[in-house]
This record gives sequence, structure tokens and C-alpha cells, in this order.
Amino acid sequence: MNLGKVVGTLVATRKESTMDGLKFMLVKHVDPEGKETGGHVVAADAVGCGPGEMVLIATGSSARQTIATQNRPCDAVIMAIVDQWEVNGVDKYKKD
Amino acid sequence: MNLGKVVGTLVATRKESTMDGLKFMLVKHVDPEGKETGGHVVAADAVGCGPGEMVLIATGSSARQTIATQNRPCDAVIMAIVDQWEVNGVDKYKKD
Amino acid sequence: MNLGKVVGTLVATRKESTMDGLKFMLVKHVDPEGKETGGHVVAADAVGCGPGEMVLIATGSSARQTIATQNRPCDAVIMAIVDQWEVNGVDKYKKD
Amino acid sequence: MNLGKVVGTLVATRKESTMDGLKFMLVKHVDPEGKETGGHVVAADAVGCGPGEMVLIATGSSARQTIATQNRPCDAVIMAIVDQWEVNGVDKYKKD
Amino acid sequence: MNLGKVVGTLVATRKESTMDGLKFMLVKHVDPEGKETGGHVVAADAVGCGPGEMVLIATGSSARQTIATQNRPCDAVIMAIVDQWEVNGVDKYKKD
Repeated sequence: MNLGKVVGTLVATRKESTMDGLKFMLVKHVDPEGKETGGHVVAADAVGCGPGEMVLIATGSSARQTIATQNRPCDAVIMAIVDQWEVNGVDKYKKD
Repeated sequence: MNLGKVVGTLVATRKESTMDGLKFMLVKHVDPEGKETGGHVVAADAVGCGPGEMVLIATGSSARQTIATQNRPCDAVIMAIVDQWEVNGVDKYKKD
Repeated sequence: MNLGKVVGTLVATRKESTMDGLKFMLVKHVDPEGKETGGHVVAADAVGCGPGEMVLIATGSSARQTIATQNRPCDAVIMAIVDQWEVNGVDKYKKD
Repeated sequence: MNLGKVVGTLVATRKESTMDGLKFMLVKHVDPEGKETGGHVVAADAVGCGPGEMVLIATGSSARQTIATQNRPCDAVIMAIVDQWEVNGVDKYKKD
Repeated sequence: MNLGKVVGTLVATRKESTMDGLKFMLVKHVDPEGKETGGHVVAADAVGCGPGEMVLIATGSSARQTIATQNRPCDAVIMAIVDQWEVNGVDKYKKD
């Protein structure tokens, strides 16, 4: 899974009909230090996340293994909201 | 999904027969600021988009989860036309 | 799909037996201007292409959605020969 | 598969329910010399690994081919703990 | 498929049990000139290759389309040993 930070939302009215009801989030990738890497992705939200939250993103066919996304043309899904992570025993991120 | 801008079309007469009738669009990737990143992809059009439009592209096996593309050797599909997106509450793109 | 130019062929006698009869082509990736990007791939030929031709390549599981490649350990297939493409209304490539 | 070194753990309480019970590990990619490449991934642990261990990571749909991860929105799994590897006959890594 | 050169072997005793019996090879990617690109992958061996040989590697779900790897958490497989390739009619590699 990729680590990312939710930074925005995206609206698309005209789309494959099976995508109706899915919320698109704009997510910037972050590294283990919590810094943005320059990469980004538009992901469907399967967990009810909001702006500023750190999340995990599953891509490819794995992005279709949620109730919200199965059998849909969706290749990136937010499937977890991150509470905390540590590297070598040092907390690098802790949710407020 | 990847963000992209439709910049052109591509014609291929000789192809796997299951690809007949699909329209190939040339799409340049854009970042959350709407600037081109230098990347591109040739994607099948599942939504009836046109030149200049901002779109979402699904890749891999997810590109086959539309009526137009299922069971076809297609690894990139335009499955939504973007109306608007915002980053940190600021509109970065709004369709005319 | 990726845009590429067929530049050579590859022979492999010892291989997974299901790959027998498939022709391997060496393809260099090109950008929308038709210039080589530095990337390359070895792809199975599903359409009968030849050296110098511009082609489309499908990758991943989509590469197995042709009669020639289904159920085979093949992750890249040439599934179309390109006749022409244009960017912003200007022809960037036209087959002779 | 990718070579990586387990450097930390990640906690996510709110997630797709099928991910319950899976342990998320933060893994930094290493090259054949054992040096970090700068890349990283968050992977589910299918083998009971710990910090500092060298591991193999399978990605994409292959990440769902373990008992722990099948049918889950998981695109990276640690499916082996590395004991040793050599390049051109020279040991580059040997577990203590 | 990716072009690569087998440079070493890797041993992992503790692993997902379905991976038992598979041999892991360390493979460095090469370009059409036969030069190493800096990339590498750990791939399962489905053809009985040895050090120094040029091989083709299939990745993703296609890596599971061999008898040795089906239904296993394996995302890269060596499915062919390369005898020869040419670019623009010039031999770039020929096996001894």
C-alpha cells in the first residue's frame, strides 16, 4: 500500500455509471518521514476520510476488493485511515 | 486513477478484433496544479470525451471494468470527465 | 496503452511451453511527438507487425486478453498497429 | 518480488473491515548490494517478520495469494523472510 | 516482458508455504544494448536458468501463469531463456 495525505476532492458528473456514489479524493504521496514525495493519485474513498488525514491506498485489482469498489473501473482506493506509524522505534506520525 | 488532459486522437486499423469500435485518445498526465507532468498514455474512451477535457484514467485490469472494454486487451480507460477539483479548499480546475 | 516503435526481434528456445509460437518483438517507447523516451519492452506480437512500425502495447493482465496470449505468462502484447495520431489537431505521425 | 528491509510498523484503526487482524509493516526497498534505494512500501505481513529483517514483497494481485490476504484490498504482502543472497558468487547478505 | 541478466540466487526458509520448492533468482534489468539499467528484481525460476544467462521476466498476475507459480504470491517469473536478439538488424546479444 502507498502512504498518502488527503489534500482535496474531485467532482466528475459524467462517468461510467458504476462509479456513481463514489467520492474521489486527491491524495499526495508521503515518505516514511511524512514528507510529500511529489507523487499523487486520485483515489475512491472506501472509509470516509477527510482533508488532512494520512491514509493507505491500495492500487490495481486490489483497489476493487472493497464493497464500494468491486467490479468498478477503479484502480486506487483509500482503504484505511492511518493513526500512527514509527520507523526504528521513533514515531514519525501520530494522529491528533 | 490518474488525472489527465485529452490532447489528441489515434487511429489504428489493424488491431486485435475485439478492439473494434473503441476510440483511442492521447492523454497527457497533469499534476494537482493542472500542469502537465511529462507523462502520457493512450486510453480507450468509455465516456465520450473530447480534446481539451480533463479526465480520469483507470489502468490495469480496472481498465476492463467498463461495458466498452471488458475482456479486451485494454489497459487504460477514460472512465470520467472531470468537472472540478480543489486542493486545500482552493479550486485548481473548473470546467467552463 | 503505451506507444512504441518496433525495433527488433528476440529468440528464446527454452521457455514456458505455453509461450511456443509467440513472436517476441523489441519495442522502444515513444512520446506523443514520436521521439524515443529511453524506455523499452519485449512484447508478444498479436497482430503481425514488422520492424519500424508504430504500435500500441497493452500490459499486465490486459496483455492476456488476446487469442494468442490468453492464460500465458505474457505481460506485454502488441494489440494494434498505429496508422496515425494527432496532438491538438496537428499530425504527429502518419504511416506511409 | 522486491527486496526490502522492515523498518517500522503502522497502525490504522479505521479501515475496510476485511483488513482487520492484518499487521502493516513499513518496508524500505534495498538493492542487490543491500543498500536502501529511497523507495518504500507499506506491506501486510503474512510470515511474522520483525524490524530489521530483510524480506521479499509481492505486489499487485499476487499480494492477495496468501491465506492472510486473499480477497482483501491489499496490494503488497511480505511473503518471505530472506536468509541469504549472493551476487556473482559473493554473499551480499546473510542473516545472523 | 522485461529483459534481464541472472546475477545471483536468494534463499528464504521462512515463507508462505505455497512458495516451497520455487527457486529465487536475482536478476538485473538490461536495455536493448545489453547494458544494465540499474534496476533489478527477484524472480521465481520457471525454466531452469543459471547465472549469467539473459532471460525474460513476466510480472504481475502474468507471473502466475506458469505451472510452477499458479495461485502463489509470486509477482515476477523467469519464463524464457534468451538465445539472441537484434535491433535494426544488428545482433545485440547471442548466447554462446
